[in-house]
Parts: sequence; structure tokens; C-alpha cells
Amino acid sequence: MWVVPESEIAGLMTAEAAFDAVEAVFAAMARGDAYNFPVVREAIGYEDALYGFKGGFDRSALNLGLKAGGYWPNNQKHGLINHQSTVFLFDPDTGRVAAAVGGNLLTALRTAAASAVSIRHLAPEGARVLGLIGAGHQSAFQMQAAARIADFDRVLGWNPHPEMLGRLADTAAELGLPFEAVELPRLGAEADVIISITSAFEPLLMNGQVKGPTHIAAMGTDTKGKQELDPALVARARLFTDEVAQSVSIGEFQHAAAQKTISDEDVTAIGRVVIGKHEGRGDAEITIFDGTGVGLQDLAVAGAVVELAKQQGKAIEVAI
Amino acid sequence: MWVVPESEIAGLMTAEAAFDAVEAVFAAMARGDAYNFPVVREAIGYEDALYGFKGGFDRSALNLGLKAGGYWPNNQKHGLINHQSTVFLFDPDTGRVAAAVGGNLLTALRTAAASAVSIRHLAPEGARVLGLIGAGHQSAFQMQAAARIADFDRVLGWNPHPEMLGRLADTAAELGLPFEAVELPRLGAEADVIISITSAFEPLLMNGQVKGPTHIAAMGTDTKGKQELDPALVARARLFTDEVAQSVSIGEFQHAAAQKTISDEDVTAIGRVVIGKHEGRGDAEITIFDGTGVGLQDLAVAGAVVELAKQQGKAIEVAI
Repeated sequence: MWVVPESEIAGLMTAEAAFDAVEAVFAAMARGDAYNFPVVREAIGYEDALYGFKGGFDRSALNLGLKAGGYWPNNQKHGLINHQSTVFLFDPDTGRVAAAVGGNLLTALRTAAASAVSIRHLAPEGARVLGLIGAGHQSAFQMQAAARIADFDRVLGWNPHPEMLGRLADTAAELGLPFEAVELPRLGAEADVIISITSAFEPLLMNGQVKGPTHIAAMGTDTKGKQELDPALVARARLFTDEVAQSVSIGEFQHAAAQKTISDEDVTAIGRVVIGKHEGRGDAEITIFDGTGVGLQDLAVAGAVVELAKQQGKAIEVAI
Repeated sequence: MWVVPESEIAGLMTAEAAFDAVEAVFAAMARGDAYNFPVVREAIGYEDALYGFKGGFDRSALNLGLKAGGYWPNNQKHGLINHQSTVFLFDPDTGRVAAAVGGNLLTALRTAAASAVSIRHLAPEGARVLGLIGAGHQSAFQMQAAARIADFDRVLGWNPHPEMLGRLADTAAELGLPFEAVELPRLGAEADVIISITSAFEPLLMNGQVKGPTHIAAMGTDTKGKQELDPALVARARLFTDEVAQSVSIGEFQHAAAQKTISDEDVTAIGRVVIGKHEGRGDAEITIFDGTGVGLQDLAVAGAVVELAKQQGKAIEVAI
């Protein structure tokens, strides 16, 4: 078994490698070469933790396994971040465990890569203004991944807690982009691409605030009850996601689906755009990508990082 | 993360330690301190493999995690056994991975421990004759674990493929017990305790063949369609299992449940007997324990073996 510790990931994995791995696995899903297993997610009744498994198999990349871990809200007392996960890869030829990989940074990178893939394939032509809703840990990864993909010349940002906006300003500065903190109506009117990455449980961005052409990557909703977008905005847009069943049940599109203003058939797997089976944006004014996060993304970036770690002599081999 | 390789398990784990761990976790389940997560089990469409995850949490022993792996029917060409699994334990205080443990031998030991627990608590008094139905890889573990628990003075055995009965004869010889290969009517009439451990898909042991008082541990059925016992025998007996929901859906009791000759209320979790909340055998002529195999058993024996490995300096510490 190869072990790639969390501490090595930052030196091995790039936003570019994560983009390539995630785009490839979305394509594999659309070709029918890769599928996700049912998700296990349990409130274990201890330390208020949520714990579970997201697994899958990509027969084109030969990635088999799972990400295990979850959310431990009291981890600060241990000096650890609240989201903790580990990815385990298995040899699909034998069933033996092949690798154990620290999953914390990889999760941020694969989530940011998913929105970047959606921007590559769905952003309106000539997109110049990037809007960020949310300024938590993941927002920096999102901005970095997005800036690789489109030729943005400025960034607008909003966060429910304005005191956190320094993270967005700092990240924009690192990228050499001017940053401005704005209210949502201005963000919705001016941004060509909007990424929302919050833990909100009610709509933040309202239908009337968005002036197209706009692409929105809604990356925050991965649980029943969470919500970032006005369902009327969803109903008005052309809709894409990583996995349709997940998006209409626990993703951002759960609310419009519950209101029956959209149906499963209105939602396209982004992989179909990647492989050219769907035109993508077409003449839509607004496109929305609902990034719910699937196990195959975790396996894809973990598989990539294990290869990099082996090439660079940073993978530890342990008999098991 | 502590790693305990498959090659070390045989030198660390004993049938006795497995018994204690499995009996304790059955008790924890009955007290409501431990529960199993939904099982993921997938035919991945590659190498005819079945792959999946069995997880759970025992808040009394603080065992959290999963067994991942499955059945690779073509593994002989790689010089490997067909069942391959690995157990991953997580720290319930932080969500960080705590251990990776080779799961192949542990699976055999925990399965044998489950039937041994049922024999300890349900065998008729003065049981002297042990009957084994099945002579595959696991049958030796079953006989060894059973022989620790009751004072058997002889062993009877039957297998669909008689040429395999040498395994039972050899194991009995190691235990110093006389062994006789017999037909099922004699086995059913003479054995006080019967363990069935086959991959059968139709009943082998028929109702009319069993003359009580007898305890039967049905250990082979863990999938829809598998079957070892005549449903009329099940309907006539007092019924116990590791986990009721699993036994009536994918365990041996699925068939009698489907025929509606038994209901969920007729099946008692063995842990209730362990903690004294159920009388166990009572005046029943025949008792049956349906050992379906739950993730908590895997976590229990893995937790025990990690402690032993640490004490004996055989656990490998790897940063992750």
C-alpha cells in the first residue's frame, strides 16, 4: 500500500492536475465508464460528528475506492480542522488496498476543480468579472481554480460575515486581480461568473439580482436543507450538475425540484458537455452548475496524486 | 496511522480474543451503544468482482470505521485468495484515520467467533457432538472456535463435494477429536450443535433430518438468494441473529420471512441474550443463530488486534 500523507499533498498536487482529473472523471461518468456508489452519511451521536463514505469505480482510469471521513465540529480543541477525510484506493484487478491518501486538501482542490470545469464549459464568452459569494476556507481555492480558466480582470465578493472578506481580498491580490467587496445586487448585476461557496440554509442570491449572461457555480449545498440560490433563479436557468440524482435530492436543485418547477430531465450532467453530447450554454442567459461533490472526484484526484508522489519519491510503501 | 499487515495477524490474534471482541460488540449493539451503517455492496462490472463497505460505530469500545473489500473470483491467477478486505479504524474524537489492518484472516476469525458466541449462549446443555456442514476455507476456523466453547467429544461432517472433507478431518485431528464423514440425516439426528458454512443457494439441511435438542449456527448466507436450511426448520426453531434487519433481508431467515412463516418479531438479536435481556434457549427444542456478518464485528476484532500489535511492537506507525 502506498501512503501519501496530508503534509505532502500541497507540494505534489496542483489546481491544473486537479482540473484534468476531475474533467476526465466527469467525462467517464457521461460515457458510462464510471459510477458512484450509494453515499453513507451518519450522524454518529458522538462529538456531534457526521461521518461517512463516498465510493465509486472508474473503469477507464481504473480508480476504485472511497473517501471516508466527515465533519467534526469541535476539532479546534485538538488543533485540527473540522473536515477530516482520507481516501483509500483499491486495485480493481485483485481487491487489495493500493493507497491511503490524506483527503483534506484534496477535497478543497477537487471541489474547486469541479466549478472550474463548469466555468471552462459554460461561462459566457468574454467573461471578465468573477463574483464570489462566501469567504470561508474553500473560497480561496475556488478563486484560484477559476482564475486559471478564464481571463478575469476583477473580482467582486460578498460574505454573510463581512469581517471574513480579507481572505478574498488577499487571494485576489495573490492572483494580481483587483478586488471589491460589494452587496449582492451589484455582484449579481456585474459578475459574468458567480461562485457561491457557503453553508447557507436559505437563499442568498435572488432571481432579480442576476443580470445575464451569467454562469453560476453553486458549490455549497451538499445536504438536505442547505440552500444558496433563489429557486426562481434556478427555474429560470439552464441547469447542469456533477450527478443528477444527487443534485435534485441533496444538492442546490433539491428546492426547485421539491417545488416541481424543475424535473430531473431539466438537469444535465456536466460530463455530457465535456464529451460533446450536449451543447452546454447554447443561447441560455443563465447557466447554473450544481456542484454536489461525488466520490469519483475524490478518487480521481487521489489517483493523480499517488502517481505524482510515486514519480517524485514521496509515496511511502507499507506492507499490509 | 497504525498499520497492521495481513502477515502479522496470525501471530497476534487468537480465537479467544476474537470471541471476546465479538461477544462484547454484540452486547454493545443490544445496549444501543453500537450500530452498523447501511451496507454498500456493488457488482462493479470488472473482473466479476463484488466490492463494498461495511461500517459502524461502537461508542463503548470507541471503534469507528469500516471494512472495505470484497470478492474477486479470478484471484487465483494472481496467487491471492478471492476474498480480500482491509479494515480502517478512525479516531471518533477527531475523524482522523487511526489504523489500517489486513482484513482477510480477521474476517474468518470474526465469523467463527460469532457462531462460537451463539454456541456459548444457546447450545443445549451437555452438547457433545459437533456437526459441520461445509468444508471450505472457513470451516476449519469454525470448528476451532466451536471446540473452545463446548466440551465436544466427536465431530461429524458433510460437504457437497466429499473430496474436500479432508480439511474437516485434519482440523478435528489437530483438536484431538474423532471425525466421521456422514450423510445429512445422520448428522442432523446425532449432532447437538450444527454449524453450516457453505455458499449454497438451496436448502441442504431439511426439517425432518434434525432431532433436537440442537443448536444450529447458519453462517453461510449473506446475500439474497443464498440458502442453507429448510424454511420449515427455521419456522420450527427459536431464532437468533447478529442483526435482525439483515437476517430477514439477506441472511438465512430471508426465506422464511418471504414465506411469512416468521416475522421480524420472531428473531432475537443474540446480544440481548449476552446481556441477559432474553432467556436464550429456554425450553426450545431447536435454536438457530443466523450469522449474517456485520461491520461492527470487523471493527471489534481489528480494534483488538491493533492493541495487541501496539503492545507487541508489531504495529507500523505511518504519518498520513
